[in-house]
Amino acid sequence: MFNSFGHLFRFTTWGESHGPAIGCVVDGVPPGIKLSEADIQPWLDRRKPGQSKFTTQRKEEDKVEILSGVFEGLTTGTPISLIIHNMDARSKSYDDIKDKYRPAHADYTYDQKYGIRDYRGGGRASARETAMRVAAGAIARKILGKKVVIRAALVQMGEHAINRKNWDWKEINTNPFFCPDAQAAALWEKYLGGIRKAGSSVGAVIEVMAEGIPAGLGEPVYSKLDSDLAAAMMSINAVKGVEIGAGFASAAMRGEQNADVMRMKGNKVTFDTNHAGGILGGISSGQPVVVRFAVKPTSSVLIPIPTVDVHGKNTEIITKGRHDPCVGIRAVPVGEAMMACVLADHLLLQRARVPGFKL
Amino acid sequence: MFNSFGHLFRFTTWGESHGPAIGCVVDGVPPGIKLSEADIQPWLDRRKPGQSKFTTQRKEEDKVEILSGVFEGLTTGTPISLIIHNMDARSKSYDDIKDKYRPAHADYTYDQKYGIRDYRGGGRASARETAMRVAAGAIARKILGKKVVIRAALVQMGEHAINRKNWDWKEINTNPFFCPDAQAAALWEKYLGGIRKAGSSVGAVIEVMAEGIPAGLGEPVYSKLDSDLAAAMMSINAVKGVEIGAGFASAAMRGEQNADVMRMKGNKVTFDTNHAGGILGGISSGQPVVVRFAVKPTSSVLIPIPTVDVHGKNTEIITKGRHDPCVGIRAVPVGEAMMACVLADHLLLQRARVPGFKL
Amino acid sequence: MFNSFGHLFRFTTWGESHGPAIGCVVDGVPPGIKLSEADIQPWLDRRKPGQSKFTTQRKEEDKVEILSGVFEGLTTGTPISLIIHNMDARSKSYDDIKDKYRPAHADYTYDQKYGIRDYRGGGRASARETAMRVAAGAIARKILGKKVVIRAALVQMGEHAINRKNWDWKEINTNPFFCPDAQAAALWEKYLGGIRKAGSSVGAVIEVMAEGIPAGLGEPVYSKLDSDLAAAMMSINAVKGVEIGAGFASAAMRGEQNADVMRMKGNKVTFDTNHAGGILGGISSGQPVVVRFAVKPTSSVLIPIPTVDVHGKNTEIITKGRHDPCVGIRAVPVGEAMMACVLADHLLLQRARVPGFKL
Amino acid sequence: MFNSFGHLFRFTTWGESHGPAIGCVVDGVPPGIKLSEADIQPWLDRRKPGQSKFTTQRKEEDKVEILSGVFEGLTTGTPISLIIHNMDARSKSYDDIKDKYRPAHADYTYDQKYGIRDYRGGGRASARETAMRVAAGAIARKILGKKVVIRAALVQMGEHAINRKNWDWKEINTNPFFCPDAQAAALWEKYLGGIRKAGSSVGAVIEVMAEGIPAGLGEPVYSKLDSDLAAAMMSINAVKGVEIGAGFASAAMRGEQNADVMRMKGNKVTFDTNHAGGILGGISSGQPVVVRFAVKPTSSVLIPIPTVDVHGKNTEIITKGRHDPCVGIRAVPVGEAMMACVLADHLLLQRARVPGFKL
Repeated sequence: MFNSFGHLFRFTTWGESHGPAIGCVVDGVPPGIKLSEADIQPWLDRRKPGQSKFTTQRKEEDKVEILSGVFEGLTTGTPISLIIHNMDARSKSYDDIKDKYRPAHADYTYDQKYGIRDYRGGGRASARETAMRVAAGAIARKILGKKVVIRAALVQMGEHAINRKNWDWKEINTNPFFCPDAQAAALWEKYLGGIRKAGSSVGAVIEVMAEGIPAGLGEPVYSKLDSDLAAAMMSINAVKGVEIGAGFASAAMRGEQNADVMRMKGNKVTFDTNHAGGILGGISSGQPVVVRFAVKPTSSVLIPIPTVDVHGKNTEIITKGRHDPCVGIRAVPVGEAMMACVLADHLLLQRARVPGFKL
Repeated sequence: MFNSFGHLFRFTTWGESHGPAIGCVVDGVPPGIKLSEADIQPWLDRRKPGQSKFTTQRKEEDKVEILSGVFEGLTTGTPISLIIHNMDARSKSYDDIKDKYRPAHADYTYDQKYGIRDYRGGGRASARETAMRVAAGAIARKILGKKVVIRAALVQMGEHAINRKNWDWKEINTNPFFCPDAQAAALWEKYLGGIRKAGSSVGAVIEVMAEGIPAGLGEPVYSKLDSDLAAAMMSINAVKGVEIGAGFASAAMRGEQNADVMRMKGNKVTFDTNHAGGILGGISSGQPVVVRFAVKPTSSVLIPIPTVDVHGKNTEIITKGRHDPCVGIRAVPVGEAMMACVLADHLLLQRARVPGFKL
Repeated sequence: MFNSFGHLFRFTTWGESHGPAIGCVVDGVPPGIKLSEADIQPWLDRRKPGQSKFTTQRKEEDKVEILSGVFEGLTTGTPISLIIHNMDARSKSYDDIKDKYRPAHADYTYDQKYGIRDYRGGGRASARETAMRVAAGAIARKILGKKVVIRAALVQMGEHAINRKNWDWKEINTNPFFCPDAQAAALWEKYLGGIRKAGSSVGAVIEVMAEGIPAGLGEPVYSKLDSDLAAAMMSINAVKGVEIGAGFASAAMRGEQNADVMRMKGNKVTFDTNHAGGILGGISSGQPVVVRFAVKPTSSVLIPIPTVDVHGKNTEIITKGRHDPCVGIRAVPVGEAMMACVLADHLLLQRARVPGFKL
Repeated sequence: MFNSFGHLFRFTTWGESHGPAIGCVVDGVPPGIKLSEADIQPWLDRRKPGQSKFTTQRKEEDKVEILSGVFEGLTTGTPISLIIHNMDARSKSYDDIKDKYRPAHADYTYDQKYGIRDYRGGGRASARETAMRVAAGAIARKILGKKVVIRAALVQMGEHAINRKNWDWKEINTNPFFCPDAQAAALWEKYLGGIRKAGSSVGAVIEVMAEGIPAGLGEPVYSKLDSDLAAAMMSINAVKGVEIGAGFASAAMRGEQNADVMRMKGNKVTFDTNHAGGILGGISSGQPVVVRFAVKPTSSVLIPIPTVDVHGKNTEIITKGRHDPCVGIRAVPVGEAMMACVLADHLLLQRARVPGFKL
């Protein structure tokens, strides 16, 4: 039950980095939705490694196949099984980590928990698992429909945050960082180039925004919309922090300053600001839903780090494989996907409760 | 199912701020544990309102009663029902908010979701619900036993953070803020006094730490220990951000800097630092588990804020009731309780998997 | 999590036979439904002990109180907490069973499972728990509305089955057995009188029928409507068998004989027979849903039965308390309630999937 | 979530009869268990169609592949993905049922529920899905270990029950019916031959027994061992009834007669009879766990049956495909598998509660 996510829209992922395949089973998809591999593949392609020199050079086509749940082009309401065969799983390059625990990786804790671990490429703990989240997210988007727009951007790389005044969604597809600020993107290009050459890595902050979500989604009090989003984002590899709307900054605010003033515009309720990130009392307010999460730098660096081995000896490790100088970049489509999955799930839940509910 | 928290150790809360009572049912408690009201009441007393001028003056005894699941002083493995009767529920003082939506509160979203709302004192959205989390947390602590120490502190009030060099756990019980830094506490006393007199409010950051947790707790990949902790903390009223270990700060770090270097001390694995907050790959590493969360300032202030009413008219609101200038203070025992519940739950899960597993 | 039943309409029961109270929390009730104690009490009264000489003489008023989730007479969508205070819990009369295991009761297995047991009146294993199922069922009926009619009848007592040709629903309220066959009821009166006087007990079969259920409820393949109904009925105390429609009799049939022939009547699909009990492939077909379950005779008899005690000694036991010569009688309203709960739950599930779905 | 079964040991199945493949994901398997395809295949082979003239002549190799969760021959604690590619999916032979609803099949109800249906070979409602239950059951057996023996037998075919005095477990592998009574098997051979030639079909009763289960498994009150077993068996295609131990026969018994007398044998508790089927109060008693279930005759017969078509016209149907004259035969290994899955699940649950618990 712990490799499944969601309540009614619920997906289960399986597979290891260097096994024969990875996959997921998506349950709870309403019937009658047009769906083919062509609806899923473009989202996977955005996450695909090896698209620029700034992401791992592992060559994976990440070609998704639908094995069930779709008949004559339409979903049938039965579980949709998706599979991606692993192509470029050079096991050799990971032989070094068989006996050494990479600091800041899950090697040590998997061994402590299970007493056994598939050490090849991180096994189940590999970021490769997130490909299936992106696939599930593509199906979630089909449930939400075109009125809902979910987009994400990298808003901080290492110590360099974007200038929010420069925010332009069109920019995110014109640079290899999903950066909405052209100036920041230019700076990052050099910055990350240097980090890559130094064999180092750096963290990042991603912001995900969903527009077109009406008020009413979210289940108080233990499946609040923000609570489910926090779990969703925190479950992504390397994520160490999640915040909604003003987030941690709201701790420094006064009540009258943090409150989003409500005003009528015609017969519509509007808000002057969005410190709440579109969620009040765990329920969507009709404003854009805004989530931000922090990704730590991977510790797979070419710089030797002291560590211990499985035999209880001190040693040091250099992780040579093909890795990302900023794993945060590829987390952008993953964050979008998790947002889509949470929203689709809560849409179904709200429909169950209020028969006439529509997006 | 949405008023329940946990997998095997699982509690369900019920009740509104101004109803006859609030309560919870705690399921999954192992049999044979000594338990009486005296094990629960002290934790509730720490959260109780009206203990200083800095928390709401609502007078609630918050006297807990055990209604089931305990026989001759021992848990029987059957569900433990807890109840607290509401005493001081002056409905009158809330009449004003019947028709007006308090900005930054759940009034508007409950109405949008359910089409109906118990407006008295926030109804189900009231922070009063958190009393039952503290009660459940007290039982979770009994499952974890005395080797596990869970403590929390207020580490930032408004724009004033503590100086971590002054950290002294003994201080947290000597000031009304659960502040571990005596100097900061002195400063806050004046600072919050001013805010209170101005009829304003301010946010806060709480840090929760669990010591004595062995490596191996946490279920990859969708009930990772950090993922469940994020959901737990984000489900607390007014929380807008959650981070683990270095959290958002890790975004600005380099890989070699963020990695917690591992070293053998005798035959024990140790770590030089704890940027990971005791969790790697979603599994506890044996280091202290460290979670931080941000609480927004309540918008229940004596300063008029523009808003709309249920009839779709612009208006403004002053929330007169008895409120907290810094709700973050009372969130400290709640954060501890949620940490205890998550850990007890994962202890049971790990036992299921590894028969000999012990704390 | 194991004292909860249902997916979206989900209730959690708590309490022991001789504790201060029993209760339940009903989660997932849609908002805006008129509800008061008066909607629940009549169903409880039907199950209440002591109504005739044929049920236990324990005197319980079973007065239900609503503690949350209802505001100004309407459900709010938040959890509904129900409580019944235990009145007539004469602990003395159970002192004898403290040390002896009653055969066919749960005494021995509770001790084996938990190492501890509240022996007073069966503790958690007492049929008293079923009062809360009836209460939850009353709320489920409100969700289903008046178009859905759920009724149950005792169709076999001991070796005496009813004659189905005499079936008249009006009869069930005119005899103390919920018997739809006046002739059988007359026979049973004498039959059960004899059993009662002999200090013995006897089993029974109950049939539950739900009319007005449209086609489309049930979730293949592991929450099929019949699968959930089977779990629901088998979880009732003393139930040893469950069947749908023709049930075990279908094993002896030929395919062409068992198939319910489908015919158009105007533009409506009709069936000539209902061997399927209204469920095909786990999904309701629009025919009445028919479930039957067998209740074993309680072994609480005044006839000495050989057994063992907690010290591992052979002994014998006479259970003197106040008991039911045919516990099956009081299982009739419980079976109805569980049917209502399963159907309300599946109605919500189907609504989530098909937005326009209506009863 | 509705294509998943189990609490901690939990499997999710996917796939349609005539899609490219079927599969399942088994989550919650403890680490360190030896597992390869060779542990699963023999169980699948027992269920495989086409082994005698008495089961469908569809030729399926049903070759299972493990895609994840096993490393160097041992389970790793991560999800185990299993796949079987569909080979002999002659879609043509099902063209006739595209427009006509087969009575007693799920055709009509799937259309009513989902508004769409994969009509080829029953789609998701096909008994083909049960292959994956058998595969999951094989893994469950590995968790239970060799002390637990789970066996099943056909005890009634049509109107012909076995003579229980002739019961010999060794017989079940010497006839094509899993029949433990050599005389009955001989009779059935002729009987079913006649039914097959007549193009008809017949129902059956299967009995499943688990030996070596200690007292203590089962979670009162809504995941009682019998409640979970009832759900498990009722979810199998074509099952219409489930009973535990004496089952429906207990309705006709007296309390003193139905009670299984308890006696000490040395320092071990024993029972004179097993009317309870090894379960008291929903918890295993240490006796063999005995479940029986009834399978209806398939209505896929060569005899024309009146029905309606998707256009709302009366018509009749002859189902020509390759079918089973007694589907109950192939349900025998499926019943065993579901028993194994329920027991493995409850073993893990009990371990979580009682740290030292062992089989």
